[in-house]
Amino acid sequence: MVSVAIMGHGVVGSGVAEILLTHKQKLFSNLGEEIYVKRILDLREFPDSPVADRFTKSFDDIINDIEIRVVAEVMGGVNPAYDYVKRCLKAGKSVVTSNKELVASHGAELLAIAKEENVNFLFEASVGGGIPIIRPMNQCLVANIVNEVAGILNGTTNFILTKMIQEGMQFDDALSLAQELGFAERNPAADIEGHDACRKICILASLAFGKHVYPDSVHTEGITDITLNDVKLAEKLGYVIKLIGKVKKLDDGNIDILTAPMLVPFKSQLSNIDNEFNGIMVRGDCTGDVVFYGKGAGKLPTASAVVADIVDCCKHLKARRFIFWADGDGKNIISWKDSVSAMFVRVSGEDAALKAEEVFGKVRFAGSTGELALITEPMRYGDLEDKCAALEEKGVKVLSKIRVGDI
Amino acid sequence: MVSVAIMGHGVVGSGVAEILLTHKQKLFSNLGEEIYVKRILDLREFPDSPVADRFTKSFDDIINDIEIRVVAEVMGGVNPAYDYVKRCLKAGKSVVTSNKELVASHGAELLAIAKEENVNFLFEASVGGGIPIIRPMNQCLVANIVNEVAGILNGTTNFILTKMIQEGMQFDDALSLAQELGFAERNPAADIEGHDACRKICILASLAFGKHVYPDSVHTEGITDITLNDVKLAEKLGYVIKLIGKVKKLDDGNIDILTAPMLVPFKSQLSNIDNEFNGIMVRGDCTGDVVFYGKGAGKLPTASAVVADIVDCCKHLKARRFIFWADGDGKNIISWKDSVSAMFVRVSGEDAALKAEEVFGKVRFAGSTGELALITEPMRYGDLEDKCAALEEKGVKVLSKIRVGDI
Repeated sequence: MVSVAIMGHGVVGSGVAEILLTHKQKLFSNLGEEIYVKRILDLREFPDSPVADRFTKSFDDIINDIEIRVVAEVMGGVNPAYDYVKRCLKAGKSVVTSNKELVASHGAELLAIAKEENVNFLFEASVGGGIPIIRPMNQCLVANIVNEVAGILNGTTNFILTKMIQEGMQFDDALSLAQELGFAERNPAADIEGHDACRKICILASLAFGKHVYPDSVHTEGITDITLNDVKLAEKLGYVIKLIGKVKKLDDGNIDILTAPMLVPFKSQLSNIDNEFNGIMVRGDCTGDVVFYGKGAGKLPTASAVVADIVDCCKHLKARRFIFWADGDGKNIISWKDSVSAMFVRVSGEDAALKAEEVFGKVRFAGSTGELALITEPMRYGDLEDKCAALEEKGVKVLSKIRVGDI
Repeated sequence: MVSVAIMGHGVVGSGVAEILLTHKQKLFSNLGEEIYVKRILDLREFPDSPVADRFTKSFDDIINDIEIRVVAEVMGGVNPAYDYVKRCLKAGKSVVTSNKELVASHGAELLAIAKEENVNFLFEASVGGGIPIIRPMNQCLVANIVNEVAGILNGTTNFILTKMIQEGMQFDDALSLAQELGFAERNPAADIEGHDACRKICILASLAFGKHVYPDSVHTEGITDITLNDVKLAEKLGYVIKLIGKVKKLDDGNIDILTAPMLVPFKSQLSNIDNEFNGIMVRGDCTGDVVFYGKGAGKLPTASAVVADIVDCCKHLKARRFIFWADGDGKNIISWKDSVSAMFVRVSGEDAALKAEEVFGKVRFAGSTGELALITEPMRYGDLEDKCAALEEKGVKVLSKIRVGDI
């Protein structure tokens, strides 16, 4: 029997407790011993829970209990999760977490502590909810040099964009619907401004390239400026607009990483990942493109990934799982102005097509109701800005600029 | 340093040797020690190989070498692979294989021997080539009760069907093109008759449900009878035709497994997996649908999965990885005649629509050039055959019957 503790009894935490109870037999037959939930940390009371007697409001009951070998941190937020996780690791307990904010902001340090203490720190649930991605990247693709990772990493924004694309809903209406259906929080800023997706691509970039990438060093754009006209003109040109987290290793060893809305070609495997679903593409030198698809959030999908990590920790109480990256100083990240991609530019104004060709050369166009969109050749973002300024000088209004993803 | 041997130096085997040489540094940094290819077994000579001195024609050089702890079997075919693998396991060596025929026909026995000898028998490469699927199912989805697995598991047939669907090519022409491009073998029977896909769904079914499923107990239909008319009428009704391996757990605990062409709805994640690519959907009770996509065959994709297994074995020389299923007697498999699905039926003849409604009740129709296709309600295959016989009695010719996949 392995005793574990769960810190947090919110959506994911209650799911973890539920799965450990309802899937006891399945887990036992895989692990060969019982996983016993000894403590659940939460400041609230849950008198009706079948495990009501195991709740505690004091972290001391977990940190001081030497029988507890594995701790699941599912509180969310950096504080006090960071402090608790650090103390658990230092006390020789393995920790698993679904907390992307924690991993994105302190992953390297926590992995280093875990290594030193010869315990495990696992976080499959922090990216892609129930979709297996951390372990497949770390184990199954170990014989690959990963060149690029790109994904639809946030279900809320993908739901909103899908409603705009498929039903012609305005952004605000789609957001309200997402809130109504529980896919968006009352304060949706972290989702719609791209911060949640940014944290996740930071974790994947750190794992893929071995150096911690901190969210504040990654250029991040949300989807709040995407209009129905962008969506419609993109479609005419053969694309859908998705919020993409993307990191690519360049020939000089630096990485190009950003989170932004991007045009995804219809033929891409990421183009038909709709609604609240997530999809992640990993480009390996041996495998080529591999794509993982599923529910990126939600109680049971996320909790099932946490439980899988708990099982893995239970199996490796002595022999540590290899998962590691070094700290990073951001010096290996190129400026987002130097990032190169083809661009979708939406413009309006007299003779816009003619003037656009004067500035950009020969480009692909699509138009509707007085507006025009064009797809440029691949270029530095900084150069694009210069060209757009030149276009505006010619009296053409630049209404939006969206990257075209090579995915 | 861990010494390993590779049995077979064909397409996959030479890829394994290549990756172990070219990715030495990457693998070292993950494993913490060097993987040394001590022996390569092949009856041919490879004097120009950078490791020419390590080739042997004698299996004795591997089985008798106690330094060799891990053996990769990439010869293919059941004989002599089966005998060699068994002897390696019994000699206390871990074995990894890409050989789906071997795993599908002897997996339970080999897993039992591995368990007894406390060594590993891993086979990530046997299904889906470079796509991570065995390990994700076994580890990441461990907290799920899997209800269903369905996949496009054979690249050759998927390439042929894609050409028929997207370019209106006839089956024979598409097959010739696949052979020209190296996606189909000169004798394509194992692919186009569905046997290759059948072996793979047998492996996934065994893993998902814990009892070995042997290929000869699985009803298997290939794609040789699919015509352009099927493809076109399916499209009119909102489907593409794919060769699907599919297994589903029924409420009574039995399983419904078969390999056959199926209509896949446009909205399914499996519908736009095209050309030589594979895609596998796993339906878990917690995660919902999770889909894995990528190259299902080819030298480096498959070899990279073999190498990932080698690394895993090297990490677990003492502590065995848990992967196991018991032997099966086929008694938990329902008759394919009892398998229930909606059906696509293509017919011709005077008043075919009217007569079809007499037999099937209200159904959805699409027609072209004197032929008609209809989608029935879900029914037992046996009942469908009876209804089709009744239809023929009314003078309507039944040209094809294809299952509609609930995927």
